[in-house]
Amino acid sequence: MPRIDKIPTQSTITRTPLPNSTKIYLPGKIYDIQVPMRQIKQSDTIERNTGKRIPNPPVTVYDTSGPYTDMNVPIDVRNGLEPIRAEWIKSRGDVEELPFVSSLYGMERLNDSKLDYLRFQHLRRPLRAKAGANVTQMHYARKGIITPEMEFVAIRENQFMEGMDASIAKQHPGFSFGANIPKKITPEFVRDEIAAGRAVLPNNINHPESEPMIIGRNFLVKINANIGNSAVTSSIEEEVEKMVWATRWGADTIMDLSTGQNIHETREWIIRNSPVPVGTVPIYQALEKVGGAAEDLTWEIFRDTLIEQAEQGVDYFTIHAGVRLPFIHLTANRVTGIVSRGGSIMAKWCLAHHKESFLYTHFEEICEIMKTYDVAFSLGDGLRPGSIADANDAAQFAELKTLGELTQIAWKHDAQVMIEGPGHVPMHMIKENMEKQLRECYEAPFYTLGPLTTDIAPGYDHITSGIGAAMIGWFGTAMLCYVTPKEHLGLPNKDDVKTGVITYKIAAHAADLAKGHPGAQYRDNALSKSRFEFRWEDQFNLSLDPETARAYHDETLPAEGAKVAHFCSMCGPKFCSMKITQELQEYAANKQVDEQSALEVGMQEKAEEFKERGSEIYW
Amino acid sequence: MPRIDKIPTQSTITRTPLPNSTKIYLPGKIYDIQVPMRQIKQSDTIERNTGKRIPNPPVTVYDTSGPYTDMNVPIDVRNGLEPIRAEWIKSRGDVEELPFVSSLYGMERLNDSKLDYLRFQHLRRPLRAKAGANVTQMHYARKGIITPEMEFVAIRENQFMEGMDASIAKQHPGFSFGANIPKKITPEFVRDEIAAGRAVLPNNINHPESEPMIIGRNFLVKINANIGNSAVTSSIEEEVEKMVWATRWGADTIMDLSTGQNIHETREWIIRNSPVPVGTVPIYQALEKVGGAAEDLTWEIFRDTLIEQAEQGVDYFTIHAGVRLPFIHLTANRVTGIVSRGGSIMAKWCLAHHKESFLYTHFEEICEIMKTYDVAFSLGDGLRPGSIADANDAAQFAELKTLGELTQIAWKHDAQVMIEGPGHVPMHMIKENMEKQLRECYEAPFYTLGPLTTDIAPGYDHITSGIGAAMIGWFGTAMLCYVTPKEHLGLPNKDDVKTGVITYKIAAHAADLAKGHPGAQYRDNALSKSRFEFRWEDQFNLSLDPETARAYHDETLPAEGAKVAHFCSMCGPKFCSMKITQELQEYAANKQVDEQSALEVGMQEKAEEFKERGSEIYW
Repeated sequence: MPRIDKIPTQSTITRTPLPNSTKIYLPGKIYDIQVPMRQIKQSDTIERNTGKRIPNPPVTVYDTSGPYTDMNVPIDVRNGLEPIRAEWIKSRGDVEELPFVSSLYGMERLNDSKLDYLRFQHLRRPLRAKAGANVTQMHYARKGIITPEMEFVAIRENQFMEGMDASIAKQHPGFSFGANIPKKITPEFVRDEIAAGRAVLPNNINHPESEPMIIGRNFLVKINANIGNSAVTSSIEEEVEKMVWATRWGADTIMDLSTGQNIHETREWIIRNSPVPVGTVPIYQALEKVGGAAEDLTWEIFRDTLIEQAEQGVDYFTIHAGVRLPFIHLTANRVTGIVSRGGSIMAKWCLAHHKESFLYTHFEEICEIMKTYDVAFSLGDGLRPGSIADANDAAQFAELKTLGELTQIAWKHDAQVMIEGPGHVPMHMIKENMEKQLRECYEAPFYTLGPLTTDIAPGYDHITSGIGAAMIGWFGTAMLCYVTPKEHLGLPNKDDVKTGVITYKIAAHAADLAKGHPGAQYRDNALSKSRFEFRWEDQFNLSLDPETARAYHDETLPAEGAKVAHFCSMCGPKFCSMKITQELQEYAANKQVDEQSALEVGMQEKAEEFKERGSEIYW
Repeated sequence: MPRIDKIPTQSTITRTPLPNSTKIYLPGKIYDIQVPMRQIKQSDTIERNTGKRIPNPPVTVYDTSGPYTDMNVPIDVRNGLEPIRAEWIKSRGDVEELPFVSSLYGMERLNDSKLDYLRFQHLRRPLRAKAGANVTQMHYARKGIITPEMEFVAIRENQFMEGMDASIAKQHPGFSFGANIPKKITPEFVRDEIAAGRAVLPNNINHPESEPMIIGRNFLVKINANIGNSAVTSSIEEEVEKMVWATRWGADTIMDLSTGQNIHETREWIIRNSPVPVGTVPIYQALEKVGGAAEDLTWEIFRDTLIEQAEQGVDYFTIHAGVRLPFIHLTANRVTGIVSRGGSIMAKWCLAHHKESFLYTHFEEICEIMKTYDVAFSLGDGLRPGSIADANDAAQFAELKTLGELTQIAWKHDAQVMIEGPGHVPMHMIKENMEKQLRECYEAPFYTLGPLTTDIAPGYDHITSGIGAAMIGWFGTAMLCYVTPKEHLGLPNKDDVKTGVITYKIAAHAADLAKGHPGAQYRDNALSKSRFEFRWEDQFNLSLDPETARAYHDETLPAEGAKVAHFCSMCGPKFCSMKITQELQEYAANKQVDEQSALEVGMQEKAEEFKERGSEIYW
């Protein structure tokens, strides 16, 4: 029996800027576009002896939170976000507006008055490519066109360089993949990476609300947050807020994996309010349509589902077309069999019918749909390992090879493609995954779930997988699908979503540092400098999660005075190494000598002086 | 003004076994020793069609929790633990019992009646080596002796193999370091690794309560938990419980880093009740003795502190003897200067006196003390980087080279040595740390703090560092010093200690898997099998933190029935991939064919049958 669903209201949506942060917008040079960024203001450094104030530049960071953190932008969740891309799409002249949705099921839901109370009210007419047209970013790129979307991401990828202090930035040896990353991302580079299939810019023409972003290993590593209801729990209201919440903390895309009630309407609400691309696994909804019986699935039902979702504006589809009939027996002796929901549904269908998967046999038709709306493929790894014991086995790699074949077919259609990856993999077997994927899938972007590096810590799988995610991100994975603490145990709530997102922002950023992404270290340096100078507020504000950092500090030293104190409760005033070091540096500075010359002159007298002065200035 | 300190009572100490777990003891073959292990019982697998029960073997895991989890052992925290090693030590005939403590300060504290209320009451007379004797495990090993301690750790290191199911265990390609690990650890191997300096068995003759353990890269990766008060917070009562709590969750050693009041008495309480080796940084207490003024430190005060702590039973000392006068200027242009408390204290002393560090100049005298009690060196990395910007710089590596020189000196005395390592290091610079350490310190065990792979996530530094810890553990680090969520922000409380320990158990275990440690994967396989078979209780019990796993599951499906349900709230009943896979496997089994033959025969008829039967057995 269905529970009564709930739609979002203004008060259920988080709408505040992050502390000491301002939204800024950088204009394009080619197009009239406004690229949002978050600028974190810093306080001044105060020289200890002179009291002189030296300003610290604001730190600009990549911002996935959309207008929700810009109080100058009015938002009404019942209207959805402003369609910032609508004009860009129409001006290309290759789309037509449809009078109604093309999907039978979509029409049915629309006409069901029992759903009126939870339906999003301001539906636009769907767009699709004119007959014979191809509206994918890859298609434009291969024709040599730089789209506004491409310029947008080029500016966006460079934003951490705004205000960068070259004297702090330090050269790093870099990693082999890093060598391909240019010092400054240009629109031409974006175009060429998309044309080559090395990057994906997921932007359905029916999701004009989204802010363009790019997924490719020569760009910043991205993260995805899964949300969505299940048959057991959750409402539309909760899921929309989870989307806003996930992007607030840094999710670059979200996937709506709803498998419960009102999947169609839940997705509509999410897409209309989402500033980031939205992915789905259409087979989930198709299965709902046949009452949960995998063997009753048909190509026709699946096809209608693809069109239904494409016209709502889903930006990428997970399609498990690599789960082929001849591979299923390869999973028979696994410890954990098939752990992908989509993979197990298709395996069941294949065995029940003793037929090749309809996703595989109809793949070219799927490509036709993808290029009509510019939905990107995320070729699903339905046979990924679900335990350390099953990592890198024959089933997994047989599927990966097939995904490579399918990539070539999709690219014939100029359809954008990324490849999903494991799963559970011990550390020493991670690199093989990346190398094989690059080789067998022709450098299409890799999009991995973790991987989890051990099975023994349910409740902490954000951490077991964060280790694997950081490593595989360094090796070249373009997007990391987050894992929350609830993995294997239950549906994540808002706190779990935040923990998952922050953990994966850490993994992605650690990977960017290791890849030698230009300027990635700027934020680390700014935060470390603030830490060393006891600018506690700046340290909180520059961190991935200012609220938690502040709360942990205040747990033991809550007084406001402690926010300028030259110590914390960890070591107390006498044992603060940074305080002692500052005294050392100051000593050298005062004497107009650096420590080197002090040592070389080796004057006992100087030492005495230092002792007499007393270096205990602050206590 | 000192706060009133509090001593522990029975009720403040956690004393329960972990769920479904029994303490077992394995006897030695050479010596009359009892090696504790934790056995986790599993429920039966129930075949779905026949209902037949197939028993699952208990899983035996390494157990650091001491007698606190064995309800058959009476414990009175005011008496301390039973001195299980006392006879082993005495029977070697190379120690003498002293009438009083040798340290002046120790004597002073003992005679101060104001401290009576918080003093541990059942002090033993201290032991020390007879004149000319050397009581280190390295000394015995080099003479070819296998001690009871060595046999103890040999049995302990193999314990995960008890009951191992070879059919589940899977071969792994292994890693270069893994190649040195024998299939079964023998007492001879333990002895030879200690003799070569590749492993450390920290066991002060004055800490007979401790259960022997070994630190070396050809053994299981170990973790350390730091506890201890600071001037701002905490009591003896809290610190003793933190020790019990940390070892309950898996800390292999603890370090008492107290810098607040009653350091001497706090340490006594901890050691007398600790089943694991205890490390300290003696310079902290020495600094307290001179009122916090680094420049007033003297060799004599430091020496008295070493003896005071050695006679209490501290098992390893962090000694920052590598912070030499000529290296200090190398930190002048760092973003975060010197971040080691001990390092900054010694740097201040060196600059104030313009003299070489007394730790360096008196190093041979320190070795004499170490071998008199068998305290192991943990050569401190006082110049470790405190930010990504400072990683792998000249200061850090100059000190590391010096630590190698000091290792050679210590080994002349048969003193045991491990080497402390960073700190903050981006992923691509981690391997260089390990390789340099092995080369320059002659394969002495590496003991690293993290490293943190980014600076931008205060509040989550257990995760930023857990990533680095897992990687460096794989590369060959023998012990990982935990980092808690409070790092950089405040003193960890009990929750933080647990989170830090579990995170580091994950890192250590992920490293053991990647190194190909024999049998490390057994627990993963058992847990994954229980997960696949929906034995929820077993899945909780086999995990590193059963309480959290259960709580997370119950948050959305609290009913007892859900503990046998073939789904969870994450996907709901229809979308559970493991349930669907089980149905597939069962189908093949029932038909007396595997999927392969089913496919090869390719009988459409079989497919129909499967459909008619309906595979939805459970709902």
